[in-house]
Amino acid sequence: MPPVITAFEKSPDRGRGQARDMRVRWAFEEVGQPYEVRLVSFADMKEPAHRALHPFGQIPTYEEDGLALFESGAIVLHIAERHDGLLPGDAMARARAITWMFAALSTLEPPILDLTYAKIVERAEPWYAQRLPIVEDRIRVRLNELSLRLGDAEWLDGDFSAGDLMMVTVVRRLNGSGLLEDYPRLLAYVARGEARPAFQRAFDDQLAVFTAASAG
Amino acid sequence: MPPVITAFEKSPDRGRGQARDMRVRWAFEEVGQPYEVRLVSFADMKEPAHRALHPFGQIPTYEEDGLALFESGAIVLHIAERHDGLLPGDAMARARAITWMFAALSTLEPPILDLTYAKIVERAEPWYAQRLPIVEDRIRVRLNELSLRLGDAEWLDGDFSAGDLMMVTVVRRLNGSGLLEDYPRLLAYVARGEARPAFQRAFDDQLAVFTAASAG
Repeated sequence: MPPVITAFEKSPDRGRGQARDMRVRWAFEEVGQPYEVRLVSFADMKEPAHRALHPFGQIPTYEEDGLALFESGAIVLHIAERHDGLLPGDAMARARAITWMFAALSTLEPPILDLTYAKIVERAEPWYAQRLPIVEDRIRVRLNELSLRLGDAEWLDGDFSAGDLMMVTVVRRLNGSGLLEDYPRLLAYVARGEARPAFQRAFDDQLAVFTAASAG
Repeated sequence: MPPVITAFEKSPDRGRGQARDMRVRWAFEEVGQPYEVRLVSFADMKEPAHRALHPFGQIPTYEEDGLALFESGAIVLHIAERHDGLLPGDAMARARAITWMFAALSTLEPPILDLTYAKIVERAEPWYAQRLPIVEDRIRVRLNELSLRLGDAEWLDGDFSAGDLMMVTVVRRLNGSGLLEDYPRLLAYVARGEARPAFQRAFDDQLAVFTAASAG
């Protein structure tokens, strides 16, 4: 039995692959391992059955032979540790790749998610327009630092790794925001990630879910 | 040569152990390994020499025999993987402990840091008082979910692990905020973490740095 992950029945990103199941799908495709998907609705996610898998009522989750995990970072790391293709064999390079996974999730994603919250939850608040530049500047600081470190390299540390996978999925949450356009190296970095055949397969699979839900 | 980490020369938390070096110090103490600390000022952190170690100009960093890491999550995981005491031997329990590390950093810490930003950066903004309840409610949702999952257990999943270490350090950022008092199980959970001899040694060491800097 292949592992089973959960994903949105109808993703709020309308199939743009910005939901967190995309990271796990991409990881499975990079290592060439099969997986199955169980779709959940927003109502399902708050039910006790789903909470037993994910205490914070989110997607994705991961189930395999008595093991249940949540958090996209933990799931991607678990896949990367068990199959070749996402972590270097050298112990030091491996530790650095894992560092980039944490950097994507702890340093880049929080200000990017703050922008999403602002745009969705606080759009009608009287302070929305005034506060937006503060939120965007916080993101720009991190993008600038990331761009400087990346420089003219193809990936963050040697070959493509789980660190790049996580960073690309985090940074591409800004696709369409207009913020990335000031950082051509990051635009090219995200484009390199998106051009990988494994990304494409994962992207098409999550898009097919949204398309089917919309047609239904 | 023991590993060298960086910490604030004069921590903005005034020795309350809420800076991120505390996580790494605590991890070293739990596994009984020596380490050295290089103190950096806020000015140092933005210089090229520190940026070479930490692209985002923060602390802590970790250096050992040609290996340089950043991100407290990555450093604690690196220590936990190399020494007994922070990760279970069983592969499934190990994956679940790592899941809690990611949950602490990706799900709990971002809204908690948002409160810190609001209180420091946005305190003088006209929307501060109006927006604060939104920020606090976002934290309460996560605290409630965490408390429900913890239940009457001592730690999040079996024995104390790197997942608990990370979660305790994240949740105790709320010490003094008044938010934790509605969740007695979490108060007790944080207190259990803080009562560990390894925590106490790490806490005393970081406090001594602040005390010395203040006296100087």
